[in-house]
Amino acid sequence: MPQTSAAEVSARPLPFDVADLSLAEAGRHQLRLAENEMPGLMALREEFGPVQPLAGARIAGSLHMTVQTAVLIETLVALGAQVRWASCNIFSTQDEAAAAVAVGPTGTVDAPAGVPVFAWKGETLEEYWRCTDRIFDWSAEGFDGPNLILDDGGDATLLVHRGVQFEETGAVPDPSTLSGTDAAVSEEYRVVLDLLRASIARDPQRFTRIAAGLIGVTEETTTGVHRLYELAASGHLLFPAINVNDSVTKSKFDNTYGIRHSLPDGLNRATDVLIGGKVAFVVGYGDVGKGAAEALRGQGARVIVGEVDPICALQAAMDGFQVARLESVIGDVDMVITGTGNTRVVTVDHLLGLKHLAIVGNVGHFDDEIDVAGLAAIPGAERIEIKPQVHEWRLPNGRSILLLSEGRLMNLGNATGHPSFVMSASFANQVLAQLELYTRRDEYPIGVYTLPKSLDEKVARLHLQALGAELTTLTDEQAAYLGVSVDGPYKLDHYRY
Amino acid sequence: MPQTSAAEVSARPLPFDVADLSLAEAGRHQLRLAENEMPGLMALREEFGPVQPLAGARIAGSLHMTVQTAVLIETLVALGAQVRWASCNIFSTQDEAAAAVAVGPTGTVDAPAGVPVFAWKGETLEEYWRCTDRIFDWSAEGFDGPNLILDDGGDATLLVHRGVQFEETGAVPDPSTLSGTDAAVSEEYRVVLDLLRASIARDPQRFTRIAAGLIGVTEETTTGVHRLYELAASGHLLFPAINVNDSVTKSKFDNTYGIRHSLPDGLNRATDVLIGGKVAFVVGYGDVGKGAAEALRGQGARVIVGEVDPICALQAAMDGFQVARLESVIGDVDMVITGTGNTRVVTVDHLLGLKHLAIVGNVGHFDDEIDVAGLAAIPGAERIEIKPQVHEWRLPNGRSILLLSEGRLMNLGNATGHPSFVMSASFANQVLAQLELYTRRDEYPIGVYTLPKSLDEKVARLHLQALGAELTTLTDEQAAYLGVSVDGPYKLDHYRY
Amino acid sequence: MPQTSAAEVSARPLPFDVADLSLAEAGRHQLRLAENEMPGLMALREEFGPVQPLAGARIAGSLHMTVQTAVLIETLVALGAQVRWASCNIFSTQDEAAAAVAVGPTGTVDAPAGVPVFAWKGETLEEYWRCTDRIFDWSAEGFDGPNLILDDGGDATLLVHRGVQFEETGAVPDPSTLSGTDAAVSEEYRVVLDLLRASIARDPQRFTRIAAGLIGVTEETTTGVHRLYELAASGHLLFPAINVNDSVTKSKFDNTYGIRHSLPDGLNRATDVLIGGKVAFVVGYGDVGKGAAEALRGQGARVIVGEVDPICALQAAMDGFQVARLESVIGDVDMVITGTGNTRVVTVDHLLGLKHLAIVGNVGHFDDEIDVAGLAAIPGAERIEIKPQVHEWRLPNGRSILLLSEGRLMNLGNATGHPSFVMSASFANQVLAQLELYTRRDEYPIGVYTLPKSLDEKVARLHLQALGAELTTLTDEQAAYLGVSVDGPYKLDHYRY
Amino acid sequence: MPQTSAAEVSARPLPFDVADLSLAEAGRHQLRLAENEMPGLMALREEFGPVQPLAGARIAGSLHMTVQTAVLIETLVALGAQVRWASCNIFSTQDEAAAAVAVGPTGTVDAPAGVPVFAWKGETLEEYWRCTDRIFDWSAEGFDGPNLILDDGGDATLLVHRGVQFEETGAVPDPSTLSGTDAAVSEEYRVVLDLLRASIARDPQRFTRIAAGLIGVTEETTTGVHRLYELAASGHLLFPAINVNDSVTKSKFDNTYGIRHSLPDGLNRATDVLIGGKVAFVVGYGDVGKGAAEALRGQGARVIVGEVDPICALQAAMDGFQVARLESVIGDVDMVITGTGNTRVVTVDHLLGLKHLAIVGNVGHFDDEIDVAGLAAIPGAERIEIKPQVHEWRLPNGRSILLLSEGRLMNLGNATGHPSFVMSASFANQVLAQLELYTRRDEYPIGVYTLPKSLDEKVARLHLQALGAELTTLTDEQAAYLGVSVDGPYKLDHYRY
Repeated sequence: MPQTSAAEVSARPLPFDVADLSLAEAGRHQLRLAENEMPGLMALREEFGPVQPLAGARIAGSLHMTVQTAVLIETLVALGAQVRWASCNIFSTQDEAAAAVAVGPTGTVDAPAGVPVFAWKGETLEEYWRCTDRIFDWSAEGFDGPNLILDDGGDATLLVHRGVQFEETGAVPDPSTLSGTDAAVSEEYRVVLDLLRASIARDPQRFTRIAAGLIGVTEETTTGVHRLYELAASGHLLFPAINVNDSVTKSKFDNTYGIRHSLPDGLNRATDVLIGGKVAFVVGYGDVGKGAAEALRGQGARVIVGEVDPICALQAAMDGFQVARLESVIGDVDMVITGTGNTRVVTVDHLLGLKHLAIVGNVGHFDDEIDVAGLAAIPGAERIEIKPQVHEWRLPNGRSILLLSEGRLMNLGNATGHPSFVMSASFANQVLAQLELYTRRDEYPIGVYTLPKSLDEKVARLHLQALGAELTTLTDEQAAYLGVSVDGPYKLDHYRY
Repeated sequence: MPQTSAAEVSARPLPFDVADLSLAEAGRHQLRLAENEMPGLMALREEFGPVQPLAGARIAGSLHMTVQTAVLIETLVALGAQVRWASCNIFSTQDEAAAAVAVGPTGTVDAPAGVPVFAWKGETLEEYWRCTDRIFDWSAEGFDGPNLILDDGGDATLLVHRGVQFEETGAVPDPSTLSGTDAAVSEEYRVVLDLLRASIARDPQRFTRIAAGLIGVTEETTTGVHRLYELAASGHLLFPAINVNDSVTKSKFDNTYGIRHSLPDGLNRATDVLIGGKVAFVVGYGDVGKGAAEALRGQGARVIVGEVDPICALQAAMDGFQVARLESVIGDVDMVITGTGNTRVVTVDHLLGLKHLAIVGNVGHFDDEIDVAGLAAIPGAERIEIKPQVHEWRLPNGRSILLLSEGRLMNLGNATGHPSFVMSASFANQVLAQLELYTRRDEYPIGVYTLPKSLDEKVARLHLQALGAELTTLTDEQAAYLGVSVDGPYKLDHYRY
Repeated sequence: MPQTSAAEVSARPLPFDVADLSLAEAGRHQLRLAENEMPGLMALREEFGPVQPLAGARIAGSLHMTVQTAVLIETLVALGAQVRWASCNIFSTQDEAAAAVAVGPTGTVDAPAGVPVFAWKGETLEEYWRCTDRIFDWSAEGFDGPNLILDDGGDATLLVHRGVQFEETGAVPDPSTLSGTDAAVSEEYRVVLDLLRASIARDPQRFTRIAAGLIGVTEETTTGVHRLYELAASGHLLFPAINVNDSVTKSKFDNTYGIRHSLPDGLNRATDVLIGGKVAFVVGYGDVGKGAAEALRGQGARVIVGEVDPICALQAAMDGFQVARLESVIGDVDMVITGTGNTRVVTVDHLLGLKHLAIVGNVGHFDDEIDVAGLAAIPGAERIEIKPQVHEWRLPNGRSILLLSEGRLMNLGNATGHPSFVMSASFANQVLAQLELYTRRDEYPIGVYTLPKSLDEKVARLHLQALGAELTTLTDEQAAYLGVSVDGPYKLDHYRY
Repeated sequence: MPQTSAAEVSARPLPFDVADLSLAEAGRHQLRLAENEMPGLMALREEFGPVQPLAGARIAGSLHMTVQTAVLIETLVALGAQVRWASCNIFSTQDEAAAAVAVGPTGTVDAPAGVPVFAWKGETLEEYWRCTDRIFDWSAEGFDGPNLILDDGGDATLLVHRGVQFEETGAVPDPSTLSGTDAAVSEEYRVVLDLLRASIARDPQRFTRIAAGLIGVTEETTTGVHRLYELAASGHLLFPAINVNDSVTKSKFDNTYGIRHSLPDGLNRATDVLIGGKVAFVVGYGDVGKGAAEALRGQGARVIVGEVDPICALQAAMDGFQVARLESVIGDVDMVITGTGNTRVVTVDHLLGLKHLAIVGNVGHFDDEIDVAGLAAIPGAERIEIKPQVHEWRLPNGRSILLLSEGRLMNLGNATGHPSFVMSASFANQVLAQLELYTRRDEYPIGVYTLPKSLDEKVARLHLQALGAELTTLTDEQAAYLGVSVDGPYKLDHYRY
């Protein structure tokens, strides 16, 4: 796979051997197939392509560099934007997709016509943050930086905010002096601090200028949105943000239907273990957990759910699932899947209590849902690579567990993430959010916003025809009766779907 | 069944032959069984009974007078309230439940120790509104009226608002001069107008005084809530309202899990027709439609969904249902179930297009989801009562349809409505909402409110133990990581579950 | 309900007050609706009515006297047969159906034009066996007895076989001298012995003559079939028998899809308890248990399965159900449903271990699946009738259980049994089996037979159109490739479906 | 991938570069994991290993050379057998599994200690049949041939029967003179004829001697069993055969639960297309189709079923699926999955009627379920390889289809076939069948047999513990009541499960 040094990252966008176009060609094939599965994005190209509403937009994107993202990128470009891109996860890049985007549909290795992409499968943490840094470097285009961020998990936004913070204080902290949450993610945070220290040394106002030029950010996930609300609540948010995650057609589609698809896919590619008849414990019964539980039951597993929220727990019970604490049933469990957004929901004690060769995987967000660090610290625990992203951990109790993707998102690491159709809905929201910020920037003071329901409904509408679904139309009499417009929106804002 | 004239309604609460206690005894048995299925209400009796927080509360209740409501009424009484009750539907009263409540656990026919109840199965419209009127008559208790309304569908609230309106204008309109929406419900509205005209003739300030004494209303359903938001938006709302309907543990439990239960129950009791293998068309894929579709699929039906909202339509498609317009598939349909809150979603043309003896039933709200009036107006259409609440309509095309509960709520008319466990969740919200309004009245200016999430979670928590569900508890570290309290609330307000 | 003494049974067929035709009229309405749901029987009337293939057949029927059976009876008559009928269960008769059949479509109370029916809801054991005896009394028609039996559970067949046996030995045993299995069912068996003793006293060769005139029997259920195979194996079978039960369109439709429908129906009518979220234990995962488990899961219950057969147990596990011994999980169980055909699968110890007000019901066959006798023998146990067929048993441990239909078939006792469509498949098999025996009697020496697969497929074919199912037709090339006829049969005899 | 000429096949068993042990090591890891998922085979090793009941057995195996088959092979060896192995499909070999078996757990490249394996992924037809031929060459072991065949699809059995036939007639037909069915498979059949012609030229009595030495064959699949019954019916069967396919724990587990697992796995690996919301047409609702339909519904697809057998069609309808002819709904279909064992169930007309980029795959048996030959013959049709086993066919109508595995078994070609647990059940039946034939050969005259039910139940029993399933044990009273032994078998032979 690509062996690119951090130095090389600075030098060039192409994440592959420049003498070989076959990767880009393979990616181009996949893009063509994906486009058929992304009717929302293609409809937006058709609707907005002629008017180029994103002309002048400079988008710094940080989001898993997959085939679907490639279709998103090319959609943004089709609407007039300039784009630079990094992945938001060290394992999730599909190299052929990155190559296809970088080369572009009409480009060659020597004259790439595509988008600068800084991403490959299997980055180191240093490489990852260096790549993220590079999406803010618009010097080649003649600008201080982007005017829009499209973010997933908030790393790009974090970099700007911390950059501005440390540029203001004039000093980057010494990681050895940190405590608390920052320390908990200290290995990665040290990398960020090193990068910012070097940036400030080179240009002490760089992120300050970048922040000043930013119209705003559109954020993809729960985790990133959570950070944004915290920044807004504390008064530190530097620019407006649109919470794409909480569009219905994002959170309840991507999280639920995407996971329903990609969880069993990842399990199968990683292990080939029959899911039917097995006892699967799903930690968390939010949107992700609901999709996971449905998928596993649909394959004939007996699913047990763990929850802290009594409402979600009651939903799980009403859906026919046993609701239990993991430790109460640990000895019966053949596979544990986490989908909480929480930390250490699978502890070392849990891992030691599982059946021999039980499977442990995470489809939540960060890699600390499973206490992998704690696992590695068990005296005598031995890690054997069965294949990439699949590791047997031999435990001192004589049993083993199978850990997928080292505790990171297994649906990305062991499979190919959410399928195109689901991402078409999420990404149509992203495009509409970028359009909203860029074309109506005056209506968005600093703050965190969700998309108006009419746009949410529009995204849904764009995907129905491809499924052969016929929508019923309200009569005027009915619309008047309900007090809505015939064209929607049809529900009050607090409606939960 | 009870043959009570409107005159008698005025005279006494007992909805049955006063010489016969067997109905009350049968109801008492059912209450005891229902209490076992209503852990939320029983837990509230245990928690709040000793402190009598509703002492001094005078509650006028208008809600289906079923066994479950009887447990609610006795819970309100156990918390210190005085209560008067009517049903909110002419067919939905379970007479034994009404009798049990009216007589009370320790009462006799001669000395009833219970709550004045004005409801029986099969009221006329005149009787229905006369009964509703009587819950506002607290003269026997020495008051002008209640200080709280507990409403379902908003009829009690409507009566006060229209009463005040006409008392202000000094005149009740002549129905023959009405047009528009009012005219559309003109038969029933004429009854209301007649009643209010007589009221004003007797006492021209009665409802004005009642309204002045009201702390507020807690409203159970979508329809009633919709009316409240309209009143609030137009500035006509007379007192604060708590929207109980939109508690998660109400809207997503009662509407979904309640209908999942009571729809097939009603179909079976009404028709004994095998659901398996049949084509069932579910109109609407909101909370009600989702429960309906799941129940019918769970019985082996092929379900087709009709929707106007593209988001809900996409959810239906993603859940594996065909999404179509009713007219596109009408010739294949064995049963049509409406759950929209909309008007005339099943038209006369639809009814004429159905298969012979297709079943038509409504679990939405008002009886105009199915155009029963239009059906009755078809020249040559003939109505044959198969049994109470089940009518064959012979159509001029040579086919028949089976109409359930004359288009009213068939899960109430043909079955016994939502089961106790579901109602325990809804009614625990009602009790908490009454408590909230009564004990913290100063914090609620006129407006429409939802219950705080902490109370919603409390309701869920009260029901988990009865199902044997074990809740996981956050560690302090996890709570800090998520930025929530260990005891909740766990989600942001916009979370959709 | 009908108060008919055993003496009256002898005197007349009509199971209701002769002065009142309303019951028959109500039944006639229901028959008309049921006919729409029984396309198999109606198609057989259409195909065979013109040629009267059952002319000369005298059928003694012993099968639950429901609306569906009424359609069966009238189908047999439409094909030329003479019929006399009793129920095979003391609780299962629907009186209006019995009345409708007895009066006949064109009859009056004074001149009934229908079929002699000896059945009503709530017979005593003495009445039950007296009714069974009367279907063998064809003196009014001028014959010694029937020439065909249509049996369910084998009681009619048993009566003939025991009658012949005792007529041969010349003596009926004294019940007090019995031991073993006979003694285990001694209360009912004593009634049979008394009846046969009286019969022999009146006419010592009656059953011998009846047996001699019998062409054969067609048997509906597992239990009856089991008895027939035992009789055949021991050489005591007196006439040919067709095992209708093991037609695929019977055993895998009636047992599975019928129970899927009628189990939740019975639970709902009996208790109104929410099934969703509850823990339901299904004893047995044969055809009945599979239908039960699917229905309960479809309503949101968590289902646990008990099994003795490892193959069925593995199927349950693969279908995602927990497989456990009842005693291992008894404290978590909210409802126990038996469907085994076995004895005492729910013991007194189980009953004492259940949660308060747990529901206990049987959809298997005999009433000894649940040890009701043992329950009644618990010192201090108290039986309270909540309503007919629903009894609370207060146990000395302070808890209660809810026992449905006194341990007999709750889907019949608490609901209306299998729905018409399912029975149309079963009964089409019955009609074809009667036709087969009557028209091809020479090809059936004494023995037990299943219907040829071509007839099984025919039954299925007759039901597809009503469901809108399109069957694909083999090309000649495909039929040759598969080595089958284009018209079937399509599978080898051992194929399991 | 391995580039091995037919000449090399003759020379050596190792299907990989002899200088590289990494493939074998990777396979060895997978075997260890698979053993944990194959509790049936491991239990048989434990039970029978010490007594070596297969000592002296020489088994010629022709079955997909996967990791699971490797565990089967090593189980046969652990019971004392000598084994030679080929695959029964040109695409299905997992090279690392073949390598691991060939090298053996303790072997080296220079001194392999394993089993001679003649199989690799991507054989030509010539190579395939050459490999099949080599499992009959036991000269190195000092024998004329094997004494047992373990077959899948009947190719090994076919080779012996045709070999004997042509050795008897003394001549191998000229393919150009063939007609009918033989001609229909003429390309492959020509290869077989060429091979046999060469064999007879070398040794005119070779297959006659081999057949004489054969105790019998155990056959895995429907197709092979079908051939065996035809041979037996025509009197041409040369040795006894055990039909393993029709063990319940084979046909209803492998076909149903295996396909339920591996169909979506194959779809995902091949296409990454979201299954949810799509319209999937499943051709055939036998055991395979039932598993396919359940899997697709479990992923949120809308499934439509095509069937020729009215019983299976009625089952599909009762399970809630639309039943239609493919041509009736072709324009709505997003994916077509065949599972019939029939020929040309998807015709060229169907392929031309599908939506753009509709997916077409086969999980039935032979590659002629989909008319791939007809597709290739469409003038102007163009085949583009998206990746191995995934081909876009551009059609002259401007649309494309995605054909998986060139119409062969896509769950093998695009995924890894049935998972280990399912194969453990199938292969435990195979081992028991080989044991039965070898140790009780005198009880099996020439004919086709199924395994006794007690062995079928044993296989199930061996798999329950791994799933945590608790089996209930009959009491003596219950066993007597049912007329069975406490230890089983529990059902009559015709029971369908």
